[in-house]
Amino acid sequence: MNTETANAKSDEEQIRELISKWAAALEARDVDGLTASYDPNVVLFDAIPPYKTVGVESIREVWTQCLPHFPKQFTSEHRDITIHVSGDTAFAFCLHNIATDEADHPASQTWLRVTVGYRRIDCAWKVVHEHVSIPFNPLNNQVWHIKDPDTLDMPDYSQACGEGGAE
Amino acid sequence: MNTETANAKSDEEQIRELISKWAAALEARDVDGLTASYDPNVVLFDAIPPYKTVGVESIREVWTQCLPHFPKQFTSEHRDITIHVSGDTAFAFCLHNIATDEADHPASQTWLRVTVGYRRIDCAWKVVHEHVSIPFNPLNNQVWHIKDPDTLDMPDYSQACGEGGAE
Repeated sequence: MNTETANAKSDEEQIRELISKWAAALEARDVDGLTASYDPNVVLFDAIPPYKTVGVESIREVWTQCLPHFPKQFTSEHRDITIHVSGDTAFAFCLHNIATDEADHPASQTWLRVTVGYRRIDCAWKVVHEHVSIPFNPLNNQVWHIKDPDTLDMPDYSQACGEGGAE
Repeated sequence: MNTETANAKSDEEQIRELISKWAAALEARDVDGLTASYDPNVVLFDAIPPYKTVGVESIREVWTQCLPHFPKQFTSEHRDITIHVSGDTAFAFCLHNIATDEADHPASQTWLRVTVGYRRIDCAWKVVHEHVSIPFNPLNNQVWHIKDPDTLDMPDYSQACGEGGAE
């Protein structure tokens, strides 16, 4: 293994550690921990409006408002994590779920798709961009929950063609 | 300007060129052009189901099915493009819109949020990940259109708290 490969592996491990720490912070409802690795100028495309949230202070406010509405007890689950890293830039994408015994809790009805962009700044990886979403059904403009990530289900598009399809 | 800075600028220019070429291919309904810069194993999180599409061949099928449902005449507009690049990894995020005179056309009712992840493979930048979405209103599970990107509007969350907030 040459030095470059060794460094790349280490970088990926650092980013996996950030994701694990974020999950632990979410379970602890720890806003400082949730935002510890955000760059001050991070741009978030969140699953719910506003369509864009800019800056770590604004993201802290979002978390402060929303954490009280999470289930009393839950775990933060990531799966299918893919990480690309080279030089001082990296991105990761995965699925995230709130797992809880409260079966009907609105926060746990779907897996979310998550893409995170990182820059290495002053020797530490920082989140500069995050995109969180679920798809929508163009036949009725309703959200399309991801109940089982192993099932790639979709509406019956032969009935109509709605919102313009793939981007 | 040192060599590293010059290279970084050149990489960003190459990625901007990919985005411009993609827009031209969309306007020309050119599936080969739309998928020319995709890696064979690209993972797409599209705005509509399925929540994940894997592989350039599957993405070609999506485009082939959906392009006939675009407006007769339209332009492909990007705005607020931010690009991060270092080494052989890059990511970009922006907004995209289908602009058409057909005011009520379903494909032109909202800007879309787009995040793209790139790897440099055999000296050429390739798309290995793409995430396209609009937010949803957790108070009624309906899509939340982005009509004016300069307006960060949102539902009146004081009425209730729905889908778990910021991931």
